[in-house]
Amino acid sequence: MKFDEAYSGNVFIKSHPNYEESEAVIYGMPMDWTVSYRPGSRFGPARIREVSIGLEEYSPYLDRELEEVKYFDAGDIPLPFGNPQRSIDMIEEYIDQLLADDKYPLGMGGEHLVSWPVMKAMYKKYPDLAIIHFDAHTDLRDDYEGEPLSHSTPIKKIANLIGPTNVFSFGIRSGMKEEFQWAKEVGMHISKFEVLEPLKEILPKLAGRPVYLTIDIDVLDPAHAPGTGTVDAGGITSKELLASIHEIAKSDIRVVGSDLVEVAPIYDHSEQTANTASKIIREMILGLVQKK
Amino acid sequence: MKFDEAYSGNVFIKSHPNYEESEAVIYGMPMDWTVSYRPGSRFGPARIREVSIGLEEYSPYLDRELEEVKYFDAGDIPLPFGNPQRSIDMIEEYIDQLLADDKYPLGMGGEHLVSWPVMKAMYKKYPDLAIIHFDAHTDLRDDYEGEPLSHSTPIKKIANLIGPTNVFSFGIRSGMKEEFQWAKEVGMHISKFEVLEPLKEILPKLAGRPVYLTIDIDVLDPAHAPGTGTVDAGGITSKELLASIHEIAKSDIRVVGSDLVEVAPIYDHSEQTANTASKIIREMILGLVQKK
Amino acid sequence: MKFDEAYSGNVFIKSHPNYEESEAVIYGMPMDWTVSYRPGSRFGPARIREVSIGLEEYSPYLDRELEEVKYFDAGDIPLPFGNPQRSIDMIEEYIDQLLADDKYPLGMGGEHLVSWPVMKAMYKKYPDLAIIHFDAHTDLRDDYEGEPLSHSTPIKKIANLIGPTNVFSFGIRSGMKEEFQWAKEVGMHISKFEVLEPLKEILPKLAGRPVYLTIDIDVLDPAHAPGTGTVDAGGITSKELLASIHEIAKSDIRVVGSDLVEVAPIYDHSEQTANTASKIIREMILGLVQKK
Amino acid sequence: MKFDEAYSGNVFIKSHPNYEESEAVIYGMPMDWTVSYRPGSRFGPARIREVSIGLEEYSPYLDRELEEVKYFDAGDIPLPFGNPQRSIDMIEEYIDQLLADDKYPLGMGGEHLVSWPVMKAMYKKYPDLAIIHFDAHTDLRDDYEGEPLSHSTPIKKIANLIGPTNVFSFGIRSGMKEEFQWAKEVGMHISKFEVLEPLKEILPKLAGRPVYLTIDIDVLDPAHAPGTGTVDAGGITSKELLASIHEIAKSDIRVVGSDLVEVAPIYDHSEQTANTASKIIREMILGLVQKK
Amino acid sequence: MKFDEAYSGNVFIKSHPNYEESEAVIYGMPMDWTVSYRPGSRFGPARIREVSIGLEEYSPYLDRELEEVKYFDAGDIPLPFGNPQRSIDMIEEYIDQLLADDKYPLGMGGEHLVSWPVMKAMYKKYPDLAIIHFDAHTDLRDDYEGEPLSHSTPIKKIANLIGPTNVFSFGIRSGMKEEFQWAKEVGMHISKFEVLEPLKEILPKLAGRPVYLTIDIDVLDPAHAPGTGTVDAGGITSKELLASIHEIAKSDIRVVGSDLVEVAPIYDHSEQTANTASKIIREMILGLVQKK
Amino acid sequence: MKFDEAYSGNVFIKSHPNYEESEAVIYGMPMDWTVSYRPGSRFGPARIREVSIGLEEYSPYLDRELEEVKYFDAGDIPLPFGNPQRSIDMIEEYIDQLLADDKYPLGMGGEHLVSWPVMKAMYKKYPDLAIIHFDAHTDLRDDYEGEPLSHSTPIKKIANLIGPTNVFSFGIRSGMKEEFQWAKEVGMHISKFEVLEPLKEILPKLAGRPVYLTIDIDVLDPAHAPGTGTVDAGGITSKELLASIHEIAKSDIRVVGSDLVEVAPIYDHSEQTANTASKIIREMILGLVQKK
Repeated sequence: MKFDEAYSGNVFIKSHPNYEESEAVIYGMPMDWTVSYRPGSRFGPARIREVSIGLEEYSPYLDRELEEVKYFDAGDIPLPFGNPQRSIDMIEEYIDQLLADDKYPLGMGGEHLVSWPVMKAMYKKYPDLAIIHFDAHTDLRDDYEGEPLSHSTPIKKIANLIGPTNVFSFGIRSGMKEEFQWAKEVGMHISKFEVLEPLKEILPKLAGRPVYLTIDIDVLDPAHAPGTGTVDAGGITSKELLASIHEIAKSDIRVVGSDLVEVAPIYDHSEQTANTASKIIREMILGLVQKK
Repeated sequence: MKFDEAYSGNVFIKSHPNYEESEAVIYGMPMDWTVSYRPGSRFGPARIREVSIGLEEYSPYLDRELEEVKYFDAGDIPLPFGNPQRSIDMIEEYIDQLLADDKYPLGMGGEHLVSWPVMKAMYKKYPDLAIIHFDAHTDLRDDYEGEPLSHSTPIKKIANLIGPTNVFSFGIRSGMKEEFQWAKEVGMHISKFEVLEPLKEILPKLAGRPVYLTIDIDVLDPAHAPGTGTVDAGGITSKELLASIHEIAKSDIRVVGSDLVEVAPIYDHSEQTANTASKIIREMILGLVQKK
Repeated sequence: MKFDEAYSGNVFIKSHPNYEESEAVIYGMPMDWTVSYRPGSRFGPARIREVSIGLEEYSPYLDRELEEVKYFDAGDIPLPFGNPQRSIDMIEEYIDQLLADDKYPLGMGGEHLVSWPVMKAMYKKYPDLAIIHFDAHTDLRDDYEGEPLSHSTPIKKIANLIGPTNVFSFGIRSGMKEEFQWAKEVGMHISKFEVLEPLKEILPKLAGRPVYLTIDIDVLDPAHAPGTGTVDAGGITSKELLASIHEIAKSDIRVVGSDLVEVAPIYDHSEQTANTASKIIREMILGLVQKK
Repeated sequence: MKFDEAYSGNVFIKSHPNYEESEAVIYGMPMDWTVSYRPGSRFGPARIREVSIGLEEYSPYLDRELEEVKYFDAGDIPLPFGNPQRSIDMIEEYIDQLLADDKYPLGMGGEHLVSWPVMKAMYKKYPDLAIIHFDAHTDLRDDYEGEPLSHSTPIKKIANLIGPTNVFSFGIRSGMKEEFQWAKEVGMHISKFEVLEPLKEILPKLAGRPVYLTIDIDVLDPAHAPGTGTVDAGGITSKELLASIHEIAKSDIRVVGSDLVEVAPIYDHSEQTANTASKIIREMILGLVQKK
Repeated sequence: MKFDEAYSGNVFIKSHPNYEESEAVIYGMPMDWTVSYRPGSRFGPARIREVSIGLEEYSPYLDRELEEVKYFDAGDIPLPFGNPQRSIDMIEEYIDQLLADDKYPLGMGGEHLVSWPVMKAMYKKYPDLAIIHFDAHTDLRDDYEGEPLSHSTPIKKIANLIGPTNVFSFGIRSGMKEEFQWAKEVGMHISKFEVLEPLKEILPKLAGRPVYLTIDIDVLDPAHAPGTGTVDAGGITSKELLASIHEIAKSDIRVVGSDLVEVAPIYDHSEQTANTASKIIREMILGLVQKK
Repeated sequence: MKFDEAYSGNVFIKSHPNYEESEAVIYGMPMDWTVSYRPGSRFGPARIREVSIGLEEYSPYLDRELEEVKYFDAGDIPLPFGNPQRSIDMIEEYIDQLLADDKYPLGMGGEHLVSWPVMKAMYKKYPDLAIIHFDAHTDLRDDYEGEPLSHSTPIKKIANLIGPTNVFSFGIRSGMKEEFQWAKEVGMHISKFEVLEPLKEILPKLAGRPVYLTIDIDVLDPAHAPGTGTVDAGGITSKELLASIHEIAKSDIRVVGSDLVEVAPIYDHSEQTANTASKIIREMILGLVQKK
């Protein structure tokens, strides 16, 4: 027993106590105020950390252990409730600093809109950035009932910024007709319904390029991720999602950052969604951070 | 019964305000009083409508939008609690009227017994009717502990009426030995455990015939449909169920009506079952109504 | 906004189909984006309506029936997700119109911030307006971590507008020291912990005045209202809350509008909170509307 | 029906293995098919037995232990799903036999309609029977939307049979205006809202008379009994209900049978309702059985 | 933003970062392996801390703020799963150190057995120690089915150690006949059912004495604390429990330590139990720590 | 221990009333005190029995009915809460007696540590015993944070006793690096991630040998078994688990006993896990018992 230093409480398992020495930084973006259906993803990051104590530190998939990677858990960004613009600005500034310090950003949402300022900041550093996007939804709206700051818009925003041919969406099974048509017209890649097989085809084409990976947990079937805002039948299994991440891990692309968003614990009594999310974070740490 | 004015209540998303102009009619049959295990499906139709606001109006599977089909949501039939015989009579009379008005009946249960009077009414109009039945259970009992009006009997009743060789069951993984034996002896089709592959074989044989499709949500594995009365392991995935409906949509059979039964919301904290059911209703609207 | 046709959706039991003929208008304000703790009250109005079918139409407390009062359920105001300022403006404009049409506004939240534009609109019509406020929380902050549009601020805003001596809070058991001090200094009434007894003392002093009643459901103990954003032990019982409303009903004040806010169904598995809320709405209809 | 061998199944704690030697018989009536709102009370008896293992065998209220009373748990009556008339007939016949064998009937529901055949059988044996009834609802309807066999009717049926002046209802807070009026006109006692104080006044008037006690668990406030079909705010506490039973225990009336109905476990995640019910059953065993 | 020190995560709100400077120490005892009914209290301390962020820092009951007291949250003692003896020894050693450092111990359980080693350690320092005990249960067994280390025994153990006349139990409504008899014979105080009124009588008799306060959350009625292992109807309200703590706060006794045990979050979907517990901890910090 | 009279309690459907005449004995081991994460599996056996009433007695997979096998449900072994060593000793002695009476032991956990004394007893009777083990976790630790009696150790203990080359683990997706390495070094078989295909390869090699089958329900993906202590994404489906049991049923090995452990009902609101477990028990009865 020693009481001579601050109790280091709710952090992702095995996170490093020192920011400077860490390669990667885990951070939460507890924002859910623009969602059009069920809110609650603001509690995603805290719950993912809490259940991470149930994780083994070793991945039999990658044959690596958490102690092989130094990552710092910086806690949640204190986003102002109900103010999307200020939240987005804070996130962008936060990522700017992480990138200035040459850290790998590993974010946890929160609603998917939080990925927009992250990707924007990444693009400032990596002008040839590509996006790999796993999701049930296109997220290609310009606005949601008049609001341009909406959880239905982040992929459209980044596609407009970096060029739609640099965005690759997988697992999409929901969206407006206009969104699918737009993607087709401008040459943005959308793999409907499936992730793993089309991903295997795309990855070689991105060899050597810096890639940001953004995963909406609802790419999983509701059976595998009931704890999210919008549950949509016909998704992939957690086994397929893990395999897809491992496929990226062994590819020739450079992964320069990643996030996992839309975990909303209140809708999942068994907490399987948060547990699955914490396992995905572990596999990202072990499989992707060294690929920067 | 009068259908000449808009139902004032919770309706399925994008339903048409006018009965006369509509091709199809959505209606609820909130009955669960003969179930032998867990009741609660009386609240299925209301919850399916409620969560339908979370649906996209476009199906990337069928490349169609809800505005392409006119369907009227007539609300729930006001069935008398605890009186199966009167409930059944009311349903049959209700469907008679829908068919007289040349509407496509799209029903939501409620326990599976509600499908019996619907199918009976269909047969009066379509003497060469065939039944496609997706379910975990045979539903081929003559009675349940002496009660002939039971949720375990609807398929037996319709098989007796239209002839068992006109009934095709898929996904069956539960029943009494005698039920399976009876089906075999009388030449009724039962595909055990699987739906999609055997369905592909059967559909061409039904080309041109009028078919009624009845889906018990428990054909899905409990992982995909925890919110139902009887959860039974070893079922199909929601992806397979969607694919099966799409297989019917592109076949050469005439679909003259359909239903989805046994959604019991109280057993599903995440509401994935009701959300999945509302997606299935959407795919039925987009894929089956035009096949009448 | 147009009120000239029946709302096509889930409505409160026995609501009148015609706006013009109605004395009172029920409306939902499904906003929860500025809450600092648990979101979900956006679904409060829909769930209160849904469970209202379980209500008896007669109140043995007031010996009146719902058919004695004409009230129109106008549905939810379509507030823009994540945009508090625009939401507030829409609500104010909506109430302006109700008051221009001489309707009694009966609102359902949503977070407590929605009461601010309502009270503001009321004040424009009734310059001698007083506020009766039942709540666990003071709601007297100027801002929440820098955001002036927050669910912690509505009572402060209205107190500043109409003068703090015209605001009467009851049941308060939570707040910052500064909030209690401010109230004391400026002469605003706060009854700590209790509602019924202090209310009996205050009501005679307000005789003849127009009063707006705003009830945060968390004035109830969590035992009686688990389904709310912030559960705080030590509250009053539902029996006491009903008695308090009946005390107002038989007093000599003029009640010119009222609301009930912060019902968040997802946190209440038994749905007692929504059921209790629907009973409170019934007692408001029967006891308060005629006092305008 | 045969009671001559031990019930092989889940039994109430400390129940006696032998029917003949027992003074009282516990039995379940797992029927919920006529309820107009939320079903599920069919699982009440089984869950009450299951959680009874958590009970202490000693009552500090009555200073008695379970081993001082011999009671036999006969299990559930195998009622036919969806057939109210046959269910009611079976229950009446069952009670006839219990009474012929001079047993104290201690029933567990199931919906409240099950009390009707029990009370009818009691009346055949005790022509001067009085009924004490604890409930949130009057249950004085003649029918429910045309169905005379409904959970809203049992008290009306027994009042018609034994004369309304022999029926004493307590805690009532819900019903139709006509029901309250009828009771008033025919001289049936209804104590609105409260139980304990009015009960103290009535008990001396019933001294020496045989009384059947029927308790609908929803006489409790939803805070104390969330696990029931119809939750209605403004009820009594579990402390008051216990005190009321103890008041009867020390009174001069003869209690010749009793029941507790409407426990629906699925709506109560913490299982407090079933636990409370099992404690009430214990207090009935210790306080009422010896008063026959 | 600064990243230069460890993220201080899941601690009780406003806890002081420095052990040496603190008057009181909060610590968790996450043990539940000897409970005879429902386990899960091992997660109580973590959840109480987590929800403490929803607390106001000011108590309108005591007119004090958390910043007026320095308390250090030392996290959970890492007790070995399934080993009661070693767990107890670790706790005793832990408390010995806290007392050697002159800290006020403020413990969170875990099952009630954890209070035994704490009280034992207190007695070594304070030979004239008295115990105030709020609970639904006597906890006066010598063993539970042969196991002397059981959650049913802590009060018996401490009564044997310090003498039963120094132990004062309140709110007791459950136990074996022998336990109540033993207490009576040896002169141990037990107030059955009630807490506040008998406490007011006892407190003056303890003036000036060092007292340890141990609260089992199940002294509350299940309506107020559904999230605990053994729910037992007929308990006190959270309002009464708060008032009882405040009564102690203004008495003349010396409070030298306290704990709150048996919060089991999984049984409480709304998390009201953990929220109530965090409020009680706040009131202990503000009302009791200065009374050492 | 005495098996000479019928267990008076909740039993698995269709269990035989007589011990002597039965081939197999079902028994529960309600122990969960050494688990390092979420407790609650002590209630697994009782819940599996309770939901077994929803099972059909016929298996369409195996074309057999329960009445073809005589099995006796002996209830739960009364294990002492919090005492792992005495629990383990009691289980071993219990199995010794079952084996002396030539019964097939069919156990239900409880945590996985309960399988250790069972396997130990089996080995005494069958010196050439092999173990088939389905699990998400290696369970090959020597101790858990110093405790040798832990749910993380049973497979290591039996491997040490019977020799690691006689142990065959399938579906493993979680463990420490050292555990996987140890297995590799000593020649113990571990199939990572998958069960069915590697099992088909192994079974012929075990032809004729006595095999004990131990299944941790968490070999299933959390989608299929949310009700367990440690949910770990990436598991197999219930369809695959059923197929694996059927593969064993038709193989040439001798199955001399089996168990299913780690069902923790509280984490599964829909009760799909207990229902799935009861179906697996049925398939074991029908497919494995005759293979002794």
